[in-house]
Amino acid sequence: MSCPVARGLERVGEWWSILIIRDALQGLTRFDQFEQSLGIAPNMLTRRLSALVKAGLLERHRYNDRPPRYEYVLTERGRDFRSVLVAMQTWGNRHFAPEGISVQLVNVKTGAPAEPVLVDRVTGRPMADSEYQLAPGPAATESTRRKLASRTWGGTPRPTDSSRLPVKRAARKPRAQS
Amino acid sequence: MSCPVARGLERVGEWWSILIIRDALQGLTRFDQFEQSLGIAPNMLTRRLSALVKAGLLERHRYNDRPPRYEYVLTERGRDFRSVLVAMQTWGNRHFAPEGISVQLVNVKTGAPAEPVLVDRVTGRPMADSEYQLAPGPAATESTRRKLASRTWGGTPRPTDSSRLPVKRAARKPRAQS
Repeated sequence: MSCPVARGLERVGEWWSILIIRDALQGLTRFDQFEQSLGIAPNMLTRRLSALVKAGLLERHRYNDRPPRYEYVLTERGRDFRSVLVAMQTWGNRHFAPEGISVQLVNVKTGAPAEPVLVDRVTGRPMADSEYQLAPGPAATESTRRKLASRTWGGTPRPTDSSRLPVKRAARKPRAQS
Repeated sequence: MSCPVARGLERVGEWWSILIIRDALQGLTRFDQFEQSLGIAPNMLTRRLSALVKAGLLERHRYNDRPPRYEYVLTERGRDFRSVLVAMQTWGNRHFAPEGISVQLVNVKTGAPAEPVLVDRVTGRPMADSEYQLAPGPAATESTRRKLASRTWGGTPRPTDSSRLPVKRAARKPRAQS
């Protein structure tokens, strides 16, 4: 699978892993800290921590010899997941906080809540702009190139390619009339 | 659960849902298009599409009467998930593309690959900066406030709060020596 989203998802595994990284970014390092914070079953936590170590997001360090105790510290790759979490937090606050915001990022110097937005470092322009489109990179296979050529990125449906569809094509109704 | 990350994850459900939204952002709208793109079992796809409609990320529209056929169109909430996917794509390309990048966002005017980075719209400063920290919002409960007060956001481990730990505390070894 050459899609970077799918590859990233493979490595992170599932929701528990994301919440473990969230907690690790807040400074938790120890098994019992994660267990208490997440209310997760110990065998599940063991599995997720091992998977995150294997995927290179956490490193395991012994911090006590007798009894042997380990802590789990984020690698650079794990810390870099922060931007995904900030995007997720911003989206969650925007759409699923009907009673108001309970956790947010603030600028500690001014105390003002941040308004995280993705911009292109090269141009400074917001990535939500339609001038940004998916394109094949240097390592794209022929099949990835074909797939990308038939799609537009941004959430506006393209006219249906009827050759790919087994059903008869009907005229699309404007949404206002449906 | 008042954490916006956890709330967002609840709504998106699991990996298939994220990949469905990824495809919908590229213009796919129909059951057979998603099925073909993802190689997903039909009963699983039916479940995930229903969950995404219920969570308000997709809307279901009839586009053909006989036989009845439906398409799935992103809502504003669904389109807004784009920023999470861009962050995920950027992270995936940075860490899991050893053979080179195969899919990326480019500026269509210049052809240059984008370098997506999260900045604070208020100050223009990158959110990776340590001057951004998690803080309770207006709707935070007392327990959320307590939890946040004991943590630092950013991936730098805090000194251990030994009162919360059942094990004897040992001196932390610097990573270079371990």
